[in-house]
Amino acid sequence: MTRRPVVAIIMGSDSDLGVMSETAKILDGCGVPYQLKILSAHRSPDDVARFARSARAKRLKVIIAGAGGAAHLAGVIASHTTLPVIGVPMATEDLKGIDSLLSTVQMPSGVPVATVSIGKPGAKNAAILAMQILSLDNKGLEKWLTKFKKELVEAIRAKNPVG
Amino acid sequence: MTRRPVVAIIMGSDSDLGVMSETAKILDGCGVPYQLKILSAHRSPDDVARFARSARAKRLKVIIAGAGGAAHLAGVIASHTTLPVIGVPMATEDLKGIDSLLSTVQMPSGVPVATVSIGKPGAKNAAILAMQILSLDNKGLEKWLTKFKKELVEAIRAKNPVG
Amino acid sequence: MTRRPVVAIIMGSDSDLGVMSETAKILDGCGVPYQLKILSAHRSPDDVARFARSARAKRLKVIIAGAGGAAHLAGVIASHTTLPVIGVPMATEDLKGIDSLLSTVQMPSGVPVATVSIGKPGAKNAAILAMQILSLDNKGLEKWLTKFKKELVEAIRAKNPVG
Amino acid sequence: MTRRPVVAIIMGSDSDLGVMSETAKILDGCGVPYQLKILSAHRSPDDVARFARSARAKRLKVIIAGAGGAAHLAGVIASHTTLPVIGVPMATEDLKGIDSLLSTVQMPSGVPVATVSIGKPGAKNAAILAMQILSLDNKGLEKWLTKFKKELVEAIRAKNPVG
Amino acid sequence: MTRRPVVAIIMGSDSDLGVMSETAKILDGCGVPYQLKILSAHRSPDDVARFARSARAKRLKVIIAGAGGAAHLAGVIASHTTLPVIGVPMATEDLKGIDSLLSTVQMPSGVPVATVSIGKPGAKNAAILAMQILSLDNKGLEKWLTKFKKELVEAIRAKNPVG
Amino acid sequence: MTRRPVVAIIMGSDSDLGVMSETAKILDGCGVPYQLKILSAHRSPDDVARFARSARAKRLKVIIAGAGGAAHLAGVIASHTTLPVIGVPMATEDLKGIDSLLSTVQMPSGVPVATVSIGKPGAKNAAILAMQILSLDNKGLEKWLTKFKKELVEAIRAKNPVG
Amino acid sequence: MTRRPVVAIIMGSDSDLGVMSETAKILDGCGVPYQLKILSAHRSPDDVARFARSARAKRLKVIIAGAGGAAHLAGVIASHTTLPVIGVPMATEDLKGIDSLLSTVQMPSGVPVATVSIGKPGAKNAAILAMQILSLDNKGLEKWLTKFKKELVEAIRAKNPVG
Amino acid sequence: MTRRPVVAIIMGSDSDLGVMSETAKILDGCGVPYQLKILSAHRSPDDVARFARSARAKRLKVIIAGAGGAAHLAGVIASHTTLPVIGVPMATEDLKGIDSLLSTVQMPSGVPVATVSIGKPGAKNAAILAMQILSLDNKGLEKWLTKFKKELVEAIRAKNPVG
Repeated sequence: MTRRPVVAIIMGSDSDLGVMSETAKILDGCGVPYQLKILSAHRSPDDVARFARSARAKRLKVIIAGAGGAAHLAGVIASHTTLPVIGVPMATEDLKGIDSLLSTVQMPSGVPVATVSIGKPGAKNAAILAMQILSLDNKGLEKWLTKFKKELVEAIRAKNPVG
Repeated sequence: MTRRPVVAIIMGSDSDLGVMSETAKILDGCGVPYQLKILSAHRSPDDVARFARSARAKRLKVIIAGAGGAAHLAGVIASHTTLPVIGVPMATEDLKGIDSLLSTVQMPSGVPVATVSIGKPGAKNAAILAMQILSLDNKGLEKWLTKFKKELVEAIRAKNPVG
Repeated sequence: MTRRPVVAIIMGSDSDLGVMSETAKILDGCGVPYQLKILSAHRSPDDVARFARSARAKRLKVIIAGAGGAAHLAGVIASHTTLPVIGVPMATEDLKGIDSLLSTVQMPSGVPVATVSIGKPGAKNAAILAMQILSLDNKGLEKWLTKFKKELVEAIRAKNPVG
Repeated sequence: MTRRPVVAIIMGSDSDLGVMSETAKILDGCGVPYQLKILSAHRSPDDVARFARSARAKRLKVIIAGAGGAAHLAGVIASHTTLPVIGVPMATEDLKGIDSLLSTVQMPSGVPVATVSIGKPGAKNAAILAMQILSLDNKGLEKWLTKFKKELVEAIRAKNPVG
Repeated sequence: MTRRPVVAIIMGSDSDLGVMSETAKILDGCGVPYQLKILSAHRSPDDVARFARSARAKRLKVIIAGAGGAAHLAGVIASHTTLPVIGVPMATEDLKGIDSLLSTVQMPSGVPVATVSIGKPGAKNAAILAMQILSLDNKGLEKWLTKFKKELVEAIRAKNPVG
Repeated sequence: MTRRPVVAIIMGSDSDLGVMSETAKILDGCGVPYQLKILSAHRSPDDVARFARSARAKRLKVIIAGAGGAAHLAGVIASHTTLPVIGVPMATEDLKGIDSLLSTVQMPSGVPVATVSIGKPGAKNAAILAMQILSLDNKGLEKWLTKFKKELVEAIRAKNPVG
Repeated sequence: MTRRPVVAIIMGSDSDLGVMSETAKILDGCGVPYQLKILSAHRSPDDVARFARSARAKRLKVIIAGAGGAAHLAGVIASHTTLPVIGVPMATEDLKGIDSLLSTVQMPSGVPVATVSIGKPGAKNAAILAMQILSLDNKGLEKWLTKFKKELVEAIRAKNPVG
Repeated sequence: MTRRPVVAIIMGSDSDLGVMSETAKILDGCGVPYQLKILSAHRSPDDVARFARSARAKRLKVIIAGAGGAAHLAGVIASHTTLPVIGVPMATEDLKGIDSLLSTVQMPSGVPVATVSIGKPGAKNAAILAMQILSLDNKGLEKWLTKFKKELVEAIRAKNPVG
């Protein structure tokens, strides 16, 4: 990937890679350059802060953060940047991601996290949401999204009649 | 407001106005032109579809939708547009907004809703998130957000020492 | 199936077919003609609206809709028709269907969805409920239901004494 | 009300009357004859069984049952009749109706309860759902519902522009 | 089992037998005569009512009822008898028994169900609780329970030192 | 109260007295002698253990324990006695008693707590359940319960016709 | 307070002062010097990091952090220090503190937060827990705690006999 | 282990050993002497009380208790000692540990339990938290923790660049 990344995909642990690679695949599919990093709000907090504080200057435009449990990663990144931050709550073994969801979405006034669904659907939707944001001044992406929306319809139609 | 709106604030019922006016206040404060509409996914579905389908052509850039209970408004709008859609889950009388939150955030692959916190903090954060998105090609908003972030720090510092 | 369908079974994704075919099996068993369609509230919203708006004119009498997560399908259909709409909340991988249940049942005043249990028991009950509705002016179905109720009792009795 | 009732509104306690009278008001508004009864699944079970067993013979067509907590009323009625039974989960003081909802909706295969939203919106929607069912062979009610749906749209439109 | 049963173990479905046989095993172990029946609150309600109404006259002393989902079995039995009724909430596939628990325990004033834990631990505890009740005028059972309590302590002690 | 108590009503805090006095009132009404004590599993654990260990010897027959939050009182008492122990989960300010309910009911194999509903309905039902247990060898109480059950029916009937 | 503080009480907002002053009162009562600060994980993240990184060098021994919603404060502090960090989940308006609790307690391996109960009981217990920790090499505090425990017992005993 | 233990690891059942051995492994790794015991709040309450009452005199400094369901073990120990008690909520088969968490953390004023995450992450964090407490007067442990924190950072860094 030689072009400067405009999206960063951050995850709290390499065990999240199976889920967060869904985000990467969609960005690959539409040619949006991105970087992928493992950074932990709790285990490498200074690296997170350094990354988030410098993200805008490095011309990143959207940050996607996936984490589980007391999922602080997206919120901590959002505390250090004025870029839009998308949070993907990871499903957890015991509480099934309701902990991750509440920890990600219930941010206080002033510091939003754009939260998407738990797990893989969320990882995919984070990529789409990033593209929707980037499409605001990128006609190519706008077209990609319009085509993608049509394909969603066609895919459904192709399954009918059922059976 | 004579300038063409770039943000739409949609709510499912006029009873949501007390909460969603928090979004409007912040956009007023930073001079982002917006429009405010009451549209119900369940009671005026054709109006919602018509609005959402034409939103991009009308140069809207971000749509903010607040709804409660089986809160389908943001999801229905997102099904009709490629613009980023921000969902604000309203607190509900009985289930306290957990129904609104799950109905808003748990979208299927392909159709994201950028969900923020339940109630007033979410309504405020929807405005900030919209500005973060708009700031990607608006230096004025970027500066506003940088200043806003500094003021958050200053406001906290001014409260210390406590008591 | 050459007779005009009176029940429509709609599902949001072909992955719901395993569950929703339970509805079909019961309707097959009592000879109620039905149609089966995959339509997604979020991915093919215009097809959903078109279907729902024309359902009554096509002499459909009951619509059964199964969906999971932010399960808007039944609600969106109900927003476009005056026919009774039965919602079947699909179990979801992470939140186990509590998200689907709340998204389906917590409809606002004016637009009901007749919600049944999560998953397969709900899919079966949707068929029974449809027949109960249809039986109001169909003596054959009333008899079928009376017989079915007796068989429920007999099946239980046949299992006693236990062991 | 001199005409023979076609809808029965049953509630578990007279403390539910404030909520369930919403059902009655809507039925009054469209001229559907109904009866109102207090019957408790737990305190007067034989009366409930007797009522439910004879309901169809008395030409009732839809039974609406509102109850809270371990809300068995709708389920117990459904166990004794082949008529469609609509369950309204009452909000409860402590658990806010999540107990009532789960007790009402999670019925086993074979015995459906058509569950609507918790509390007043549910009580109103029970009336609408009953009318949707009755409208299948009542053109007058079909027209009423079509008009009602239009009024829902008009009421929303009348509130715009907001403010 | 030639002695007249003093405990009845009732379950809503034969699929509950794997769990409820834990109750039976413990009663077998201490020689309390019991009967085992499958009776469904929703599928064979008249049989349930008949059983419950005659239970006291048949010299039964404690009724144990296991059911899942909208678990009405224990409550319905309790509505028809003045005997103590113990409810065992079955774990359910999707909601994991929280639906069964709330449906069993949240009974209205006047009609208690003595609810024990979800699933197998509850099935075992239902037997112990029944014996505690029976022990009030049965010295043999009191001794059995005293011994059982000592064995619980011994079993724990025997596992130390760990490893 | 000069007769030896057969029921003990224990509560974790005097703030529970408003709720637990409902238990006392019903026992007063049917002449069952009881004692009322404040004992805390966490603040006076030795007093709880001493009370529970000696309860059977003192001819107590049923122990009712009400507590909230991490509600261990009933469980701790049950760990020290072979008497039946009834647990009343108190409603809590924040989590509304779901914490109290789970802490009371989810006991491990071997040590049951007969759990009743949250709050006042539970406090009343604890008294009824105690009487059901005591009625097994007390004809007077059996009659009282039979009469009480009839009065429940009459009270409901007296409220019909509604309005 | 002229002695160097050994405990820091940090809260995310001055609206938490009403609850967190309960912590301060107890520390005042036993003469443990403390400092009180408002620091927000999301609004003043650098101040939080700076505080936490230098806490051990300043001879602080225990840090108590109270926050609500997506309650990251305690976790963020714990990510920057090797001191024990106690988290107090604040009750929240809508979700009643279940969001705060899960966000505080569900920390990943390697970075614990010692979580206490939601709201005021938690704020008080945070002080007691801090003293228990400090008492390990402070005989005065050990005595204070022993006395406190006795007073808990006495206070309960003084309330008996009830009424 | 010849040195006098300073940490006790207590678990309610030997089925918890798989999880709680994670605590032991970490303490082994840093050379903190500990003892491991199976003690049940409900099955061997006197042993628990005896252990807890004598713990401080035996020079134990921190007690770690893991239990599931109505998880009273940590709370019961805390009721008998002035030592800091760390509670590890075990995941449960049906309710996935939310019952264990609420039973452990929601302690009343005056008797704290330092609660960590559900399951294995909690078992590991209990060891780290114990070391943080012990490190307050143990320079060796302080160094170990500082090194451990650096290793957490290094481990994360070593995983980048991803893929």
